[in-house]
Amino acid sequence: MSKMDVGTAGREDLSLGREIAERINALAAISEDPANITRIFLTSEHRAAADLILGWMRQAGMAAHIDAIGNVCGRYEGERPGLPALMLGSHYDTVRDAGRWDGPLGVITAISCVADLHRRGLRLPFAIEVVGFADEEGVRFASTLLGSRAVAGTFDEAVLGVRDMTGVSLGEAITAFGLDPDHIGKAARVRGELLAYIELHIEQGPVLEQEDLAVGVVTAIAGATRLAARLTGMAGHAGTVPMRLRRDALSGAAECIGVIEEFCRTDQAGLVGTVGYIHALPGATNVIPGQVSFTIDMRAPTDMHRRRAVTDVARQIEAIAKRRDLALQIDVTHENRTAPCAPWLKAQIADAIAAEGFRVFELPSGAGHDGMAMIDIADVGMIFVRCRGGISHHPDEHVELADADAGARVLLRLIENFRPQAGGK
Amino acid sequence: MSKMDVGTAGREDLSLGREIAERINALAAISEDPANITRIFLTSEHRAAADLILGWMRQAGMAAHIDAIGNVCGRYEGERPGLPALMLGSHYDTVRDAGRWDGPLGVITAISCVADLHRRGLRLPFAIEVVGFADEEGVRFASTLLGSRAVAGTFDEAVLGVRDMTGVSLGEAITAFGLDPDHIGKAARVRGELLAYIELHIEQGPVLEQEDLAVGVVTAIAGATRLAARLTGMAGHAGTVPMRLRRDALSGAAECIGVIEEFCRTDQAGLVGTVGYIHALPGATNVIPGQVSFTIDMRAPTDMHRRRAVTDVARQIEAIAKRRDLALQIDVTHENRTAPCAPWLKAQIADAIAAEGFRVFELPSGAGHDGMAMIDIADVGMIFVRCRGGISHHPDEHVELADADAGARVLLRLIENFRPQAGGK
Repeated sequence: MSKMDVGTAGREDLSLGREIAERINALAAISEDPANITRIFLTSEHRAAADLILGWMRQAGMAAHIDAIGNVCGRYEGERPGLPALMLGSHYDTVRDAGRWDGPLGVITAISCVADLHRRGLRLPFAIEVVGFADEEGVRFASTLLGSRAVAGTFDEAVLGVRDMTGVSLGEAITAFGLDPDHIGKAARVRGELLAYIELHIEQGPVLEQEDLAVGVVTAIAGATRLAARLTGMAGHAGTVPMRLRRDALSGAAECIGVIEEFCRTDQAGLVGTVGYIHALPGATNVIPGQVSFTIDMRAPTDMHRRRAVTDVARQIEAIAKRRDLALQIDVTHENRTAPCAPWLKAQIADAIAAEGFRVFELPSGAGHDGMAMIDIADVGMIFVRCRGGISHHPDEHVELADADAGARVLLRLIENFRPQAGGK
Repeated sequence: MSKMDVGTAGREDLSLGREIAERINALAAISEDPANITRIFLTSEHRAAADLILGWMRQAGMAAHIDAIGNVCGRYEGERPGLPALMLGSHYDTVRDAGRWDGPLGVITAISCVADLHRRGLRLPFAIEVVGFADEEGVRFASTLLGSRAVAGTFDEAVLGVRDMTGVSLGEAITAFGLDPDHIGKAARVRGELLAYIELHIEQGPVLEQEDLAVGVVTAIAGATRLAARLTGMAGHAGTVPMRLRRDALSGAAECIGVIEEFCRTDQAGLVGTVGYIHALPGATNVIPGQVSFTIDMRAPTDMHRRRAVTDVARQIEAIAKRRDLALQIDVTHENRTAPCAPWLKAQIADAIAAEGFRVFELPSGAGHDGMAMIDIADVGMIFVRCRGGISHHPDEHVELADADAGARVLLRLIENFRPQAGGK
């Protein structure tokens, strides 16, 4: 933190960081399982967390309510009531056995920034809204970004019929929570009300740590393509089938995994490819696998680059299957467009980072975020905060107090210096 | 079958083959599950199958009984009672959802050969014994070769305490079957009583089919080494960790699988290596695998070759793990010595095959057989019979009638021409 010798006057006491860390811990205590952090959409933990956040928002001088999908929404008026708003936010749901920073850091930091303005009696020429999205992770109903899609007006009503593992539909869960699924449309905002959507979030990767930086400017939320591949050869006895007569589906899959890794490793433009799941049948020590299923997850900072890479990798896998006389089934199971961050917001974030005395460093977000939904009604900017070891979605997820403070100072400076896009949008 | 223009006079009617196929079907009808063949050690199906085989033995002029472990034992005296015996055999238990030929073919063929001698009133200068081993597959108590180990006098009494999936111990199951576990030692034979142990069995592999041959001479029952390997890297988000910062355990495992395949494929001496089981953790599409477990099964016709190969492969895996900064745990979980077939028996089998008009072809057995136990008290020889597509341990397991007949004619000729090893052993 040697570069923190310049920056916001009087902040060397880490007061913002301390408040944020305390609230992170308070929110982490609200969990389905006392031993691990698990806070799922439309549960009693959701309710308790929402109430806690509502209280913090009101302390910060905001009018606050829970919207029709369960998002917590606070508004800090500007120099006069009803001005268009700079929207800040992140999510407060978690995966199972989660860390405490993924999501809550962005919500809590935004509230702390508003509280700081409020303490100083500062009103800006625009309103500030803070949103805690109720469901980004998609744990309960398999569909992600439910909270931000409702706000963006792109919520798919068909999802109301999707049932969780206990058989409860989303519509029923909303009703049981005390909300009305028929009112979800009322959560939607319109473009003219919002000047921009800015999210502060932990990086969930190791790049800032490698760069020795507390914060970074996000260039884009990388789109992702997920594929399911299945190779079918011929099962056989591990002792009786000579190597030259084998059609071993797992050896074929291993060659595919090698090709995916090599293709991405030699790419210079941020392409990543992952085989996270593999299943070999019949799966016995002494039987040659006759069928192997595996997944492929590919991401790149632009859609064109990702799509070209997916095509190239699929072609190489087809060649491997053909050469090995394996049947191949390969399907796209999921595709997310890239959400590029707006250049004018990147520039203002970079200015705030530089003003706080940090080197400006740009990086893509490989993980998905609520900005992927919000981009449909607002330009999106993101600030990443370093997390230890790049670890996320894990109890070991950690942000240093100084880094939490640095992120808050950057966000606060960004807010105070915020200039809506010339000409509006 | 164009080479069958010479051979045993009067056998072109396939009469031996027809009898064998009928009995194969009769035995296949005795199954725990009427839809699939499943005949497990010490069950009522075991009892019914044993009774059927005892009847066939007695029809063939043999004295027959069930021994203390449940093997069916028949004896056809030679020119005078009490002569040392040529022992023929195989097993009549099955895996679950089995084929009908693996095991029973050897028992039934041996009985048909003796029946043929008996019909002709032929007595030889040695006795013939036929054994149907009660448990070769080891399905119920996880320990294989229980029947032949009892005969070889190498039965491990500790196995009596092992329990099946329903909690019944082997000792209790033997008692419930009407036998006495304290008498297992009485099933043991001594070396002087046996001139040799000869087993006819389906190949369970595709080599004879590739060679267009009905039968082959087995050179050795290949020993096997099984290894369990575990690579541990670092789990991470599939989107946020750049390729160069990954410690992906599955990419490492894939490279290991490639190395194992390549090492065995380029071996000229019958080495085979199989990765049959793999498990990647956490196993989610969007998470870089942090830990992967997989098994390795390696077999070769000699112990020295197999052991050297295991060492070489383990060294290459260690190098992969080191280069990728993955922790490696690798353990030998199972090891079987190679059981070489006796040269003097291979020569007599080859003579019988040639005399029946077939090209003599030698191949190792990659699968385990009762000869692995019997080698402790007798020299071992094996005849392989072609099975369709090399498929075994599967309902599609199939032997053509003509091939079953060819196997029987070879075995019969071998018996009639059998010359005990000069000088005895």
